[in-house]
Amino acid sequence: MSHSVSPLAPKTYPELPAVAGVRLATAEAGIRYKGRTDVLYAAFDEGTAVAGVFTRSRCPSAPVDWCRAQLPGGTARALVVNSGNANAFTGLKGRDAVRLTATIAAEAAGCRPEEVFLASTGVIGEPLDASKFRGVLAECAARAAPGPYRDAARAIMTTDTFPKVATRTVRLGDADVTINGIAKGAGMIAPDMATMLSFVFTDAPIAAPVLQDLLARGADTSFNCVTIDGDTSTSDTLLMFATGKAAAARIDRADDPRLAPFAAALDDLLVDLAQLVARDGEGARKFVTVTVEGAESDRSAHRIAMSIANSPLVKTAVAGEDANWGRVVMAVGKAGEPADRDRLAIWFGDVRVAVDGARDPAYDEAAASAAMERDDVAIRVDLGLGGGTARVWTCDLTKAYVEINGDYRS
Amino acid sequence: MSHSVSPLAPKTYPELPAVAGVRLATAEAGIRYKGRTDVLYAAFDEGTAVAGVFTRSRCPSAPVDWCRAQLPGGTARALVVNSGNANAFTGLKGRDAVRLTATIAAEAAGCRPEEVFLASTGVIGEPLDASKFRGVLAECAARAAPGPYRDAARAIMTTDTFPKVATRTVRLGDADVTINGIAKGAGMIAPDMATMLSFVFTDAPIAAPVLQDLLARGADTSFNCVTIDGDTSTSDTLLMFATGKAAAARIDRADDPRLAPFAAALDDLLVDLAQLVARDGEGARKFVTVTVEGAESDRSAHRIAMSIANSPLVKTAVAGEDANWGRVVMAVGKAGEPADRDRLAIWFGDVRVAVDGARDPAYDEAAASAAMERDDVAIRVDLGLGGGTARVWTCDLTKAYVEINGDYRS
Repeated sequence: MSHSVSPLAPKTYPELPAVAGVRLATAEAGIRYKGRTDVLYAAFDEGTAVAGVFTRSRCPSAPVDWCRAQLPGGTARALVVNSGNANAFTGLKGRDAVRLTATIAAEAAGCRPEEVFLASTGVIGEPLDASKFRGVLAECAARAAPGPYRDAARAIMTTDTFPKVATRTVRLGDADVTINGIAKGAGMIAPDMATMLSFVFTDAPIAAPVLQDLLARGADTSFNCVTIDGDTSTSDTLLMFATGKAAAARIDRADDPRLAPFAAALDDLLVDLAQLVARDGEGARKFVTVTVEGAESDRSAHRIAMSIANSPLVKTAVAGEDANWGRVVMAVGKAGEPADRDRLAIWFGDVRVAVDGARDPAYDEAAASAAMERDDVAIRVDLGLGGGTARVWTCDLTKAYVEINGDYRS
Repeated sequence: MSHSVSPLAPKTYPELPAVAGVRLATAEAGIRYKGRTDVLYAAFDEGTAVAGVFTRSRCPSAPVDWCRAQLPGGTARALVVNSGNANAFTGLKGRDAVRLTATIAAEAAGCRPEEVFLASTGVIGEPLDASKFRGVLAECAARAAPGPYRDAARAIMTTDTFPKVATRTVRLGDADVTINGIAKGAGMIAPDMATMLSFVFTDAPIAAPVLQDLLARGADTSFNCVTIDGDTSTSDTLLMFATGKAAAARIDRADDPRLAPFAAALDDLLVDLAQLVARDGEGARKFVTVTVEGAESDRSAHRIAMSIANSPLVKTAVAGEDANWGRVVMAVGKAGEPADRDRLAIWFGDVRVAVDGARDPAYDEAAASAAMERDDVAIRVDLGLGGGTARVWTCDLTKAYVEINGDYRS
């Protein structure tokens, strides 16, 4: 992929510390790309708990099926991720490829195949030649090291233009623990578990069912609030691994009061990663935050916010720096949720452009346009009906999106 | 609007005959555009029945509110349509503008304001200065004539690149009757009543409730099967006027057997107009027919077909002439409808590209690519579950769409 780096990319990247019990390696398996890494291998110490959230697509990829099947086991010893081929809609061959990959990784890691978690991203419908992992994963296992995480984030990229990493250190009971996360996104990003792939690693000693609860709730307010193009991938996967190596007492219950700061830090890290995904939306030139207030419920607010964030007309207006709030009205109207046209108010940035169902009497085109010229554009809607609120993130729709997706496969 | 004519425009336009009891005129009211007509005035003889189908937007335009309020009256004497300004989200001013327009038109037509039907299309949120219709409509009434319909279709265009007209002549009992239709579309076109504006005129003597029944059913299999960008307008309006001037016996019941050929001709005309709308989608270079078969129900098939037709990734693949059927799988999966990945089959044109949940063993990239190179692209999906079918129409998503919508307002 030769696309230039998104203008919304972070100016600096955080240095991610090691997470005790996690070792990483990347390699060039030649799945599809030449001259870049396309495999991430992670090894986990014994006793590592795992949690996962997956695409709601009715046509999930073979690796998603595999992970769902292994998740109830609750433990993980290895993770293998490849870019370039999604191993989705590959039929029986896809299932065989998943089993072979897990077997090769299990041999390399010295564990059972059922303790290996898998994810693939890239082209749909092409058979994945898993025999390419032979040798590669054993070699990865031999040189796996506590970092660097940025290389790991780079190996899982497809049309992403920058690697996505985030880290938090937080008190858990009587010890500090680390949470590291990486993600990839860019295209086929939509409401039901947004980013295609994200992996979170922590040394916190948290039991798998508790971890699952934290992760599912965290995904709802982060990745599930991002949309690039409204297209839900067959492969969306968020996995979290907790090695338990930190010097904190083990947490077995979701209502343990020591969890609160950890849960907050995890949520924050997931939001960070989710926003990075939106900032690297295919062809993105603007990062857009859509806030909806005054809805009948949070759920209703979320649907309206998504209707705005997914509207091609709103997104092209943002691309054109056009303060076209009429299209926001349209998107509110088409959401099918309770709305009273004559109570609607709309802001671009701090500029109120519409109120009481009509253009703001004090409307100032220059001020509204100035709000649209920023890299980060805020759209806020107050429905004036109730207390429901939601916030989602997206990017603009540019000619570059069409260009990238018009010739991705060829 | 200076966009060049869609390459999918018809090579020839039908000549529309006069409809007894209908007279038309167009004018330049200077609402927004310069040097082109922007008002359509139609006068109907006494006894003209009216039927209407409108946007399901929760934020409808003032003219839509007006038409909904007048529809139960069942009779129409005049229609006024303006382009350039949608009179949507204009608050109390919008309601005043609608009432003033109806009053001016009623004076011109010699009828009550409640017998005047209105539609506006163009920018949302700008107050419409209805005083501009003063003089203009009286002058239109003075010179209104039985045609030409193509001028009428031209006056209601916004970003449309060609006028949309269709005509049918059909036996109704013991006489031939005429059905003429015009439409405008291009942007903000989506599932719930697709085209922004369409008007159908007939001399058939059909009572208003029967007409309403015919029109609502016809809209479901025509305009409601078209999507350009998934964005539902605040202003979608389909109105039908039946003057009753044909020499056929009056029809008062929906189950009158004489109606069948008329209903079929009306459905056919509406499909024709709906397809013209898709062929003039903003920036369209390809006309796309999506057919879904084997779904659990027709409703489920329609939702899946719309999910495919609205997917930016499918639409950009069509623009790039890329036989990327993986994106069709994705769109089936995200529809949330019953689907079994391992029974799916997909065709581009006549070329089966996927079967039994994987690439077709006989897959031929060259043949699939050839199917994508045509102006008219057919995507067919068989779910293998039941007898539900649906067919919808859309166009590709091109850089020109982004260009048109990135600077429409400025």
